[in-house]
Amino acid sequence: MEKADLLIRGCIVLPMKDEGVIEDGVIAVKNGRIILLGKNSSTHGIEAEKTLNAKGMVAMPGIINCHTHVAMTLFRGLAEDKPLNVWLQETIWPLEAKLTREDVYAGALLGCLEMLKSGTTCFADMYFHEEAVTEAVRESGIRGVLAEGIIEAGSREMGEKTFNKSVDFAEKFNGFADGRIKTMLAPHAAYSCSPELLKRVREKALKLGLGIHIHLAESAEMFKELERQYNLNEVEFLHRLGLFDGHVLAAHCINLSESDMRILAERRVNVVYVPVANMKLGLGVARIKELIDLGVNVALGTDGAASNNSLDMFETVKFAALLQKSFYRDSKVLSAYQVLKMATLDGAKALGLDGVIGSLEVGKRADIILVDLSKPHLKPLNNIYAALAYSARGSDVDTVIVDGKILMENRRVQTLDERTVMEKAEKCASDLLVRKL
Amino acid sequence: MEKADLLIRGCIVLPMKDEGVIEDGVIAVKNGRIILLGKNSSTHGIEAEKTLNAKGMVAMPGIINCHTHVAMTLFRGLAEDKPLNVWLQETIWPLEAKLTREDVYAGALLGCLEMLKSGTTCFADMYFHEEAVTEAVRESGIRGVLAEGIIEAGSREMGEKTFNKSVDFAEKFNGFADGRIKTMLAPHAAYSCSPELLKRVREKALKLGLGIHIHLAESAEMFKELERQYNLNEVEFLHRLGLFDGHVLAAHCINLSESDMRILAERRVNVVYVPVANMKLGLGVARIKELIDLGVNVALGTDGAASNNSLDMFETVKFAALLQKSFYRDSKVLSAYQVLKMATLDGAKALGLDGVIGSLEVGKRADIILVDLSKPHLKPLNNIYAALAYSARGSDVDTVIVDGKILMENRRVQTLDERTVMEKAEKCASDLLVRKL
Repeated sequence: MEKADLLIRGCIVLPMKDEGVIEDGVIAVKNGRIILLGKNSSTHGIEAEKTLNAKGMVAMPGIINCHTHVAMTLFRGLAEDKPLNVWLQETIWPLEAKLTREDVYAGALLGCLEMLKSGTTCFADMYFHEEAVTEAVRESGIRGVLAEGIIEAGSREMGEKTFNKSVDFAEKFNGFADGRIKTMLAPHAAYSCSPELLKRVREKALKLGLGIHIHLAESAEMFKELERQYNLNEVEFLHRLGLFDGHVLAAHCINLSESDMRILAERRVNVVYVPVANMKLGLGVARIKELIDLGVNVALGTDGAASNNSLDMFETVKFAALLQKSFYRDSKVLSAYQVLKMATLDGAKALGLDGVIGSLEVGKRADIILVDLSKPHLKPLNNIYAALAYSARGSDVDTVIVDGKILMENRRVQTLDERTVMEKAEKCASDLLVRKL
Repeated sequence: MEKADLLIRGCIVLPMKDEGVIEDGVIAVKNGRIILLGKNSSTHGIEAEKTLNAKGMVAMPGIINCHTHVAMTLFRGLAEDKPLNVWLQETIWPLEAKLTREDVYAGALLGCLEMLKSGTTCFADMYFHEEAVTEAVRESGIRGVLAEGIIEAGSREMGEKTFNKSVDFAEKFNGFADGRIKTMLAPHAAYSCSPELLKRVREKALKLGLGIHIHLAESAEMFKELERQYNLNEVEFLHRLGLFDGHVLAAHCINLSESDMRILAERRVNVVYVPVANMKLGLGVARIKELIDLGVNVALGTDGAASNNSLDMFETVKFAALLQKSFYRDSKVLSAYQVLKMATLDGAKALGLDGVIGSLEVGKRADIILVDLSKPHLKPLNNIYAALAYSARGSDVDTVIVDGKILMENRRVQTLDERTVMEKAEKCASDLLVRKL
């Protein structure tokens, strides 16, 4: 066998393509791909440039965060305990109006650092100055599905401008950073873009073969006026416009009717369940059990740090499962394995990347995390999926590998200087607050 | 000024008796008590045996976990995704029937280690072989309000035996471990003890001046038969028995009527809100906002690790706030400060210890934790209470002090050998599973 670039030995391996577990496993990586996966005992001969002795750890696919606005780390802890409309109108929008490209870069670097340190290897993002996010992705080594936001909010001119920017961005950066960046188009929401604009987004996305990342049914309040005007709810409205004809990543999806859920299932819309931010803003509970029963692909997201206030997907995994159990008053809803699959393979599928990442399989890109099991809160290890879903937290992630490259080892991030990233973000945030006054 | 035993300098101090914050603070400790608290700049002259330079950290009262069964760490990850009755009858009770004193000791040590590593300095526990828990408390240096469980479950003989054991335990161990252990009586629940037995518990508790720790209204299902028999619901039933006449610590309190809530308020019952375990078992949501509005003192608990599956109270703090916001669809319900107060001062009050611990005040025992703020997920620090309630996790706790003694520094626990504790618990858990077969 050819010499590998990287060997990971002696750990429990969770491939996450089914519930199977390899107890004393080995993974070999070459040119960024997994070239071998199996029992440690059956691979004595293999050699590698670097070998990680991962005894006492579990190797699993990197976690995929399917909905965030990563630069919003700058706003963490501002505007606490407020309703969505007040939160947006009094704090977030006035701050965003003052955001520079430099701010977005600083916030995105901080967010990428936070995500790597909690085991996230890929994220879907929509924001302004998204070019700055591509820089943070390139430098940190993480993987991203990025989109420049399109928003009209009553101004045709702004709609036109942001539409053109979003398309330019998507064309320019698809495949950027050694292929780790994919792009989408990102109309903000049904209530903040006109039907004409949404139709143009649809056509452009279909023409360019790009996915659409959109907020959907986050708050009944926001669509109320349009619902009266069109006599259609948000899902029906977008369905009529044909927005669901291509690949769609729809974040939130709260308060859907059964007919809405059937539309999403039929149109194969990928739903991103965002339990923490939805709970924090008091927005109601997405009916994920029913969506899954209808065959909808459901992924997980954190949303921005301003409404969460964390990008730790291990936390989101636990919230995701427990909120559904609580909502349906049924402890059997969403098993530990199922919710971890939502955070890995189903997330990859939601991004159109399930042929590339999301599970540990020979031929896939090597996006792998090692979780250190030698912690009091993970003992005894009676059930590995329960340990990861209900007991582990992001800080238990020891090693992060993206595209075959070790980005964090022994909790030290190799690609970024932590202190510099934190200080830069703090400075940008405090300058921004001064500018806003 | 006399020489202190310990000085903590340069940190943000959150006394938690009101929302006030000391930016560059100092705390001096002598003979286990806080003897000084103030601005760093105003205390140049003070000397101490040991000084902790805590720049970049926040000092706050140690977290108080008001409902757990600490030895159940042994069962972590067993019986996942099952309803409460199946979980109890098929897995937990058969295992508990085989538990030895040695098992409880090993599980309790693991639990104490886990709690210290996540910033918990005091816990309220109810279980069998509770003597073994006193040993774990004594060795680890943590503080505990402990009780031996009383359960009848149809057997008068068992009721008699566990009642006597609970009383003996409470009398023998009150004030044990240099005063760090207080005791209560712990009738398991209204449905598992007869009215006669509950009356005896009430009388004994009043006579001995002990509190009562009980499960209350955890599941409507469990009390259904008695509700038909007596035409009273669980709260009314216990109220009629006079069980609320003394100091009561009532865990869960789900599905209460308004009249139930008024009874708890009038009788000054201390409610322990257990959001994570309640969600995980699909048991419904305690109406904490309404209880607080009625003036009820509400504390927080994790429950045992078998139904959580973590003893990390920082996680419980976030779940506690977000579940209420979600339930009432109102992001203003339970502010970050309020929920942290539930985890500290209100917890102390629930245990009858608010004169001793729960806030940082001169004269109180020095139960203090230092949380390290120099982490990406805690930056920028726009709001210290939001950072602690919504972004921090147990692993951010750097230093733990109980009764003036440093039990953990730089995340190294001084009183226990981590590896030995973990191995012992793993061995007991696997032996137990073999014995159960």
